[in-house]
Amino acid sequence: MDDIKIGLVGLGTVGSSVLKMITENQDKVQNITGRRLNVKTIVVRNIAKHQDQVPENVKLTTELADIVNDPEIKIVVEVMGGLHPAKEVITQLLNAKKHVVTANKDLIASAGEELAALARANHCDLMYEASVAGGIPILRTIVTSFAADHITEVKGIVNGTTNYILTQMQRRNWTYDQALMKAQELGFAESDPTNDVEGIDAAYKMVILSQFSYGTHIKLANMKVEGISAIQQRDVLQADAFGYTIKLLGISRRINGGVFAEVGPVLVPKDHPLATINNENNAVMVTGEAVGETLFYGPGAGGLPTANSVLSDIVSVTKNIVLGTTGNSFNNYQSDIGRVDPNDIVYAYYLSLQMLDAPGQMLKLTQIMTQIGASFSRIVQTKNDDQTARVVIITHKMSKAQLADFKQQLAAVDTISLLGSYKVL
Amino acid sequence: MDDIKIGLVGLGTVGSSVLKMITENQDKVQNITGRRLNVKTIVVRNIAKHQDQVPENVKLTTELADIVNDPEIKIVVEVMGGLHPAKEVITQLLNAKKHVVTANKDLIASAGEELAALARANHCDLMYEASVAGGIPILRTIVTSFAADHITEVKGIVNGTTNYILTQMQRRNWTYDQALMKAQELGFAESDPTNDVEGIDAAYKMVILSQFSYGTHIKLANMKVEGISAIQQRDVLQADAFGYTIKLLGISRRINGGVFAEVGPVLVPKDHPLATINNENNAVMVTGEAVGETLFYGPGAGGLPTANSVLSDIVSVTKNIVLGTTGNSFNNYQSDIGRVDPNDIVYAYYLSLQMLDAPGQMLKLTQIMTQIGASFSRIVQTKNDDQTARVVIITHKMSKAQLADFKQQLAAVDTISLLGSYKVL
Repeated sequence: MDDIKIGLVGLGTVGSSVLKMITENQDKVQNITGRRLNVKTIVVRNIAKHQDQVPENVKLTTELADIVNDPEIKIVVEVMGGLHPAKEVITQLLNAKKHVVTANKDLIASAGEELAALARANHCDLMYEASVAGGIPILRTIVTSFAADHITEVKGIVNGTTNYILTQMQRRNWTYDQALMKAQELGFAESDPTNDVEGIDAAYKMVILSQFSYGTHIKLANMKVEGISAIQQRDVLQADAFGYTIKLLGISRRINGGVFAEVGPVLVPKDHPLATINNENNAVMVTGEAVGETLFYGPGAGGLPTANSVLSDIVSVTKNIVLGTTGNSFNNYQSDIGRVDPNDIVYAYYLSLQMLDAPGQMLKLTQIMTQIGASFSRIVQTKNDDQTARVVIITHKMSKAQLADFKQQLAAVDTISLLGSYKVL
Repeated sequence: MDDIKIGLVGLGTVGSSVLKMITENQDKVQNITGRRLNVKTIVVRNIAKHQDQVPENVKLTTELADIVNDPEIKIVVEVMGGLHPAKEVITQLLNAKKHVVTANKDLIASAGEELAALARANHCDLMYEASVAGGIPILRTIVTSFAADHITEVKGIVNGTTNYILTQMQRRNWTYDQALMKAQELGFAESDPTNDVEGIDAAYKMVILSQFSYGTHIKLANMKVEGISAIQQRDVLQADAFGYTIKLLGISRRINGGVFAEVGPVLVPKDHPLATINNENNAVMVTGEAVGETLFYGPGAGGLPTANSVLSDIVSVTKNIVLGTTGNSFNNYQSDIGRVDPNDIVYAYYLSLQMLDAPGQMLKLTQIMTQIGASFSRIVQTKNDDQTARVVIITHKMSKAQLADFKQQLAAVDTISLLGSYKVL
């Protein structure tokens, strides 16, 4: 039987682990697919830097053309990351009839449909299991195991950096800055952590998860995305005292024929499965009309876990090559789903407020809540060192429309300011 | 495009839910596969009983021949359960070139290889996702997402009945009998609960999980299988005081090129993900060399969750029919793996003992432990109402060989008896 020759574009943490897994696990893959996998060519920026890292029979090059023009190479793994030139690289590869496997969530979230169409036009496979939640095989599971069910909600902890920071804030009573610095020391956070801590990375993943769950594309621009950098140590403590853990959750729900998707801090009850997901781990909870609640938990990042997802894609493509069935989309569920009326999106909220420590302030607050038709479930007031007081509220369920009303009315009161508003599960 | 006509054998809880899902979710399946699914014929024992339950265009019959001899029917779902005549039914169906989907764990665990070979010989698909852990898509996940990884351990809560009973014993401080009776009332346990409570059902599932994880067939006869009927209320309390929850776990580990598999009560630390799986829910934890620890959680039984797994198989078969790729095994990983030396199977143990309340007994116990080279980590002694005392021990790690030695030596001491020995995670 022929070997399957593979090209890699990029040889960082994930690329090196992919090379290692292909080299070391050839026998099992051959046992399952009948084919041996071999990495033939790797495109890197600096050949000298990687020379010692690759087996002798693997060619290192700086030229993508060495892969594009090599008819022997059937499958190419793109693990360079970023939007450009990754998009141009994948485009060139697909046009050269190469099957492509990528871990590039930014690219798939923003140009996935365009690239999937290009793959179909070239009768090529384009797979990207590793783009969401690292080692958790969530995309393929949604495609295969929820094919006949209607997913009503997909939510989860899909960013390891922020989960590590929040776990440390809670366990060690650290400030956000302390926890971020530690995460950077340990390599869980980048030197510019913006993409992670502001929820953008999680939002990309929710775009892809929503696409798979509902067959519809949500624009990042239409999603409310909030990160964790504004969470105060005392919010973590107060949530804990109320019986909750603060987690950065992506939530995507089907409501009345529309899809509502958001990323933001959420108070999760301590006995909820998502509350027990700690440190850099990820978990995705999928609720189906038939199956009910399911949860998939595992490492959200890291070289080998992510490489395992890349390998599962390579094995799928290899099976398709053997069976002659390449060129079908990774996800081919398509559905037209609209947006949701803010009156229909209902949650309880945790509101953290600062107000002048003077008579009449609580009355003002209560008046606004009454006026918008919302009510408190729990309320805690503490005096600050200065002339202000801090008030923390857990509301009864209210709609997004009511919350927007509340914020607007509160903005007109110059003695009370809203520090944070987080959903409560 | 042609419809895909489906036959059902059996119309109990799962069968009715399969019928409902196929009828109600036709549009999504068509969107994904390009084919409409239609149930044409259902084999039941008593037609009159089910007459009102099926749409007019579905034929009810008592004759399997009405499916076997109908060339229009491509896929048949066997949901009658039990070994016989289910085995004969599936054999007949495969020989008539029907693709078969089944939820029958007893049959797959005991005759899965034989039936898989028959399916291959007839170029038919045979799938059975629903046979393990109801709504959790664990088998297909192992096949697709761990294809290039080496699984080192698969363990989990794979029986909902026993997990419900243990949860209630702990939460409500009930005896085993009280909790069993409640489970029977609620329909979580059968009137003869032996298969569930003695661990046999879980053992069947571990046979199938081991097959998928290691490519090797473990004989039920070679597995130590212990149920929960001997667990005492005070074991649950004592475990709780030590910081553990007692769960009935199936554990299957690769150790030094062999596979060790067992079912029995295990003390799980309260902060371990498996400790948080309550009531009738199931969870399977898969550890891979590359990916690390992953966990898959969901409903372990119930009509619709199980039906969803059946439907995922039907959709897979439908895709294979469309692509012309039927006849490949559900799991085609094959590997020769031996048994494990009992000296290499190492756990800490919870030992519950009853001894004569007289001087010198603890000395005897300590002498035996010393002699076999094992040691205590924690020990609690309480006086019983009679002339006896109860001693509960958590040992340091020791091998199965040492445990066997311990049991043998203890058997020779007529003033001390071992009530229970459970692994500690």
